[in-house]
Amino acid sequence: MAEIPISPLAPAAGFPTLPAINGVQFATVGAAVKHAGRHDVMLASLAAGTSIAGVFTKSATRSAAVLDCQSKIGGDDSGAAAFLVNSGNANAFTGSHGQDAVNALVTNVASVLDIAPSRVFTASTGVIGEPLPHEKITGKLKDMAAGLSGDAASDAARAIMTTDTFPKGSSATFDLHGETVNIIGVAKGSGMIAPDMATMLSFVFTDAKIATPLLQEMLSKAVRSTFNCITVDSDTSTSDTLMLAATGTSNAAEITDIGSSAGSEFFQALHAVMLDLAHLVVRDGEGASKFLEIRVSGAKDDADAHRAAMAVANSPLVKTAIAGEDANWGRVVMAVGKSGAHADRDKLSIWFGDILVAENGWVSPEYSESAAQTYMKDDELLIAIDLGVGSSNAVVWTCDLTHGYISINADYRS
Amino acid sequence: MAEIPISPLAPAAGFPTLPAINGVQFATVGAAVKHAGRHDVMLASLAAGTSIAGVFTKSATRSAAVLDCQSKIGGDDSGAAAFLVNSGNANAFTGSHGQDAVNALVTNVASVLDIAPSRVFTASTGVIGEPLPHEKITGKLKDMAAGLSGDAASDAARAIMTTDTFPKGSSATFDLHGETVNIIGVAKGSGMIAPDMATMLSFVFTDAKIATPLLQEMLSKAVRSTFNCITVDSDTSTSDTLMLAATGTSNAAEITDIGSSAGSEFFQALHAVMLDLAHLVVRDGEGASKFLEIRVSGAKDDADAHRAAMAVANSPLVKTAIAGEDANWGRVVMAVGKSGAHADRDKLSIWFGDILVAENGWVSPEYSESAAQTYMKDDELLIAIDLGVGSSNAVVWTCDLTHGYISINADYRS
Repeated sequence: MAEIPISPLAPAAGFPTLPAINGVQFATVGAAVKHAGRHDVMLASLAAGTSIAGVFTKSATRSAAVLDCQSKIGGDDSGAAAFLVNSGNANAFTGSHGQDAVNALVTNVASVLDIAPSRVFTASTGVIGEPLPHEKITGKLKDMAAGLSGDAASDAARAIMTTDTFPKGSSATFDLHGETVNIIGVAKGSGMIAPDMATMLSFVFTDAKIATPLLQEMLSKAVRSTFNCITVDSDTSTSDTLMLAATGTSNAAEITDIGSSAGSEFFQALHAVMLDLAHLVVRDGEGASKFLEIRVSGAKDDADAHRAAMAVANSPLVKTAIAGEDANWGRVVMAVGKSGAHADRDKLSIWFGDILVAENGWVSPEYSESAAQTYMKDDELLIAIDLGVGSSNAVVWTCDLTHGYISINADYRS
Repeated sequence: MAEIPISPLAPAAGFPTLPAINGVQFATVGAAVKHAGRHDVMLASLAAGTSIAGVFTKSATRSAAVLDCQSKIGGDDSGAAAFLVNSGNANAFTGSHGQDAVNALVTNVASVLDIAPSRVFTASTGVIGEPLPHEKITGKLKDMAAGLSGDAASDAARAIMTTDTFPKGSSATFDLHGETVNIIGVAKGSGMIAPDMATMLSFVFTDAKIATPLLQEMLSKAVRSTFNCITVDSDTSTSDTLMLAATGTSNAAEITDIGSSAGSEFFQALHAVMLDLAHLVVRDGEGASKFLEIRVSGAKDDADAHRAAMAVANSPLVKTAIAGEDANWGRVVMAVGKSGAHADRDKLSIWFGDILVAENGWVSPEYSESAAQTYMKDDELLIAIDLGVGSSNAVVWTCDLTHGYISINADYRS
């Protein structure tokens, strides 16, 4: 365990230049869903034949839009399609009105774009339990359809923000047997983030040609080590939605097998884009001042490794110590101890960055508090834990818990 | 579900007058374990024949003192006994030094009081991972033994405090077939509180005559609906210790069966004292400004009811909304949804106090935001949730999450 580099990180702010993807166009508009003066609706139109895969929250109280999307994934994908997303209102726990609002949005998008309602996927994010004023959105759809553009991904990322402080995007471009394939994605955070099969909202697009079942397999696999490994506050949203659209408009041959060299290359690029987006969500966690990577090794099995890492990442006492730049590894011991993962106090080792803090059940003889104090001032920190009882690993990402989180969430609805 | 009164609460501050218990004496002293200028060690001496029961943290990284106590519970209980407790240092994750420190404390207490080392139980609370300066404590034991008094329970409660803002005590006195039986208890909080078999530290004493196995049975049963139903911050301590000592010095006949009228009367009184202490710990949760009772009914089974209630009680978004006096029931829906408990969005009902907020999957037609806003200004709040899918219930207690929690914990070690 000599080398534990922090994963390369996407830049904290500044939206990257995303390549246009043939067959994907965006439009955004200000519909004053909650507040006027900002774009809060985004429409993405997708060329005929686009394969669509999705993963969604496992919450037992998931929103009407999530239920609607889940029912449509895997259906006939020959026609053109669309994503319609609003911020400002989650349309969750809104009774029968919730499905009525989804139906109104879907019907109107289908009509304006002349596509099948079964190919319209919607997502909503914002306050829970208030009726979605869907007429505000449907009244703008004609203008949006007229303004669709391949270059508006940055506007799309901005339109789906809630408490986010910057728009989040990532892309990958690679060569497949002489033909270029692109992947672009956008995501939003930044509270109620402990995704369980997806993040709050993220939309990823590619011009690769991949049939829906394989696309879904790749998405489901990639989410396990990206969005499902981040947490801001341990609170899993009712609306988590991650959708992946493959237009097939690249000249590259169809990818038909995840094990082929083309399949593997695409999967790696997809994974990189999703990891970037997941990291950006954590970086912009509500009130976050530090980005934290938690690595666990030496666990009995993968589930235990993930459990121990998430217990550390979700511990309010660890997260407040990080905020206070306090190398309080005793709280890391506590979090591992309560996690339920198999652990032995006297076999635990803990590093802050490359500083060995604790081993053999106590503080390391090499440990220097002043070196640790200096390290803790960094904005990007690593806590590495070797449980010493097996050979399984996990890595998860989180942020610190600050006064900013309290301020944002003690006054969210107003 | 018309009547859902909040459980009667112990007063927030002001230590109650506790009756002296024959056979129990306390002494406290300032040993400057961490800070000078306060009493930070308490000694309780217990008469020969005292039965002792205990429940402890389930943490995989539990402290040396916890392991030592666990090994002694259930041993020969004919001789006199003692509890020695310090604050300021948890003696947890301190390697072999941890057990050495426990041994030094135990040997010295046994010598000073002339009792068997197997009858000396120690507990330590405070910072994790720093060596316990046990000589500071052992140097004071002779003075403490000389100063033992039956009336010093309030001093004992004060000596075990860490971030607590007030000492915590409770008592019950009842008549058993013409003879008086007393129970008194002290406890400390107030962070790293999500007890799993016990709270941080609590010590309960009675003059009832009960053999150890039955005493342990009653303690283990009572803890399930008292200390195991509170949470401040979801972080389970390495040092949770709850011990119950029965001196048998009352004139009441021995209690031999939990099902007898005497056994049932004693159990109810014990439960009341433990619930009082558990509530006091929550009331004094780090940074707490509000006391919250979460009631869940209509669950599929007891485990589901507890799981849903704890998910609400531990949700940072629910707890910050309470701090902000925001009747944000959408976050309650979210927390129930993520809990893993069986739930149906459209069968959920939610009350804030006696205000029906949501039913049938949406806001109640009777709901008045202004009434809810007024209610949320109370210091003691009830959130009641009927899952509508079964007949099991649970009730748990917690506090809000405020700037105070961040301030206390971002700077704890210094």
